[in-house]
Amino acid sequence: MGALHDGHLSLVRRSLAENDLTVLSIFVNPAQFAPHEDLATYPRTLPRDLELLAQQTFSIGSADGQGQVRTPSAVFLPSVHDMYPTGIVQDVAQQKGTFVEVKGYSHQMEGQSQPTFFRGVATVVTKLFNAVQPTNAYFGQKDIQQGLLLRRMCRDLLLPNPAPERLHICPTARDPSDGLALSSRNAYLSEKERGVAGTLYQALQAAESAWTSGKTKTECVASALDIISTATARAVDEGIEMKLEYVELNDSETFEVLDSASKKDTAGCEAVILSGALRVGKTRLIDNIVIGDLNRTVP
Amino acid sequence: MGALHDGHLSLVRRSLAENDLTVLSIFVNPAQFAPHEDLATYPRTLPRDLELLAQQTFSIGSADGQGQVRTPSAVFLPSVHDMYPTGIVQDVAQQKGTFVEVKGYSHQMEGQSQPTFFRGVATVVTKLFNAVQPTNAYFGQKDIQQGLLLRRMCRDLLLPNPAPERLHICPTARDPSDGLALSSRNAYLSEKERGVAGTLYQALQAAESAWTSGKTKTECVASALDIISTATARAVDEGIEMKLEYVELNDSETFEVLDSASKKDTAGCEAVILSGALRVGKTRLIDNIVIGDLNRTVP
Repeated sequence: MGALHDGHLSLVRRSLAENDLTVLSIFVNPAQFAPHEDLATYPRTLPRDLELLAQQTFSIGSADGQGQVRTPSAVFLPSVHDMYPTGIVQDVAQQKGTFVEVKGYSHQMEGQSQPTFFRGVATVVTKLFNAVQPTNAYFGQKDIQQGLLLRRMCRDLLLPNPAPERLHICPTARDPSDGLALSSRNAYLSEKERGVAGTLYQALQAAESAWTSGKTKTECVASALDIISTATARAVDEGIEMKLEYVELNDSETFEVLDSASKKDTAGCEAVILSGALRVGKTRLIDNIVIGDLNRTVP
Repeated sequence: MGALHDGHLSLVRRSLAENDLTVLSIFVNPAQFAPHEDLATYPRTLPRDLELLAQQTFSIGSADGQGQVRTPSAVFLPSVHDMYPTGIVQDVAQQKGTFVEVKGYSHQMEGQSQPTFFRGVATVVTKLFNAVQPTNAYFGQKDIQQGLLLRRMCRDLLLPNPAPERLHICPTARDPSDGLALSSRNAYLSEKERGVAGTLYQALQAAESAWTSGKTKTECVASALDIISTATARAVDEGIEMKLEYVELNDSETFEVLDSASKKDTAGCEAVILSGALRVGKTRLIDNIVIGDLNRTVP
């Protein structure tokens, strides 16, 4: 959706390293915003995005010592009409035209508070994949449910490209100072809010240590909540409103809340997703840590 | 869906004439049957289907006088698991996995009595198109709403193949004796029922003449109803239950019921669809006549 940060650029660099041609799309997708959400104000920084993309290079050596430098081949900048020929409105009840839905995998985790979000994502990504037909596709782990759901969609629709295992979910890029996951929406944070925004990742890390050290699920969540309530109290003193939406452990295959009591109950199984959503002021931050091997969850 | 008749075979012959390679799919699609419908009993005649297909040929001459004969190149016979890797149940509320829906075009005409029918069709055809990636696709006019809806779907999803205008809607094949549209479900008709099954087409023809001679829409529908009620009364005497579901005129672009009063109000516009559904015994027959040029409705 543009407003590129180093998280996006790391995906571009990985694609440059692994492919002859790299194509990007920048499209703020109306179908994945609810009527009350920030479609109108979502950051749009196209000139800067294109400048950043032009700077991304990957050098490959060759036998004759003459190196070759790869750069992005194309940026696909469709109009809303290109992507929604039948038109698109925010109110789902009024929408007309073709929509793609991944039923049974769109209502948990991030889908709880945004019930039609993944329908909007699945629809636009089907179109983008059809337009570009990429051999490999690169998505960020920050939107883990999106990546896993799209792998399932590729498989279910028998999409020729990308194959589900060619849809790569790449590590979340973070601010080295406090681990805050990079996100275009971080631009909404005031300086003071930015100061406390690392809390979510720190809470998830605490829960991860608890889990890997053999604590029960309840204890893991409690250790995350602990960090968040301490930070929330401190933030209030500084006039910052901070509100936790959820911290939860989910099965990476079914997306259902994990009902296993502890790590030993899930040993040998697919990966576990430890995720959360936190509001800092008016900005909604999400983050996650995957425990286990995500590639075992390719459907 | 197999149980091939000459309507299907005419599509095969047209494809042979227009393409180097012809690929067919035969798949009875669970997702387009409602729980109370005839999925279990739908006619399956694969050995005979394959025999019929092997007999379809198209001869092309060549400069050296050596002719070449084209036959179907492949028949795609996926399993239910191939097409629905996440599984499929008849109860829509319980379904999981990826579904494609053409909103705003699936609830009129045939969608009235089968609200999830076109969702099942759009989903399976997306998968078949992805699996085969045909340059041209051939569908029968008997399922006119399906053909037009799939054209819209191809456009909306930016499907690389087929292009919307390469999805060809071909004339309905009919029994020359009474004009009954060929259909796999005609096999359900008893001999006596078969005797009256031509009524629907005769009624639609009467409405067509009325329309083209400048009568109002109400008069057109009345002339069709007239034929059907006469036939129904006669059928009752023979112990055959015949029940009209609808006869209607719809706009071929929006699928909405035509509110124009007569032909002169729609002159110069897109095509008009005159369609109906009639139950003869337990068999539901559908048919339609298109007035105007369908190719003006390529979205």
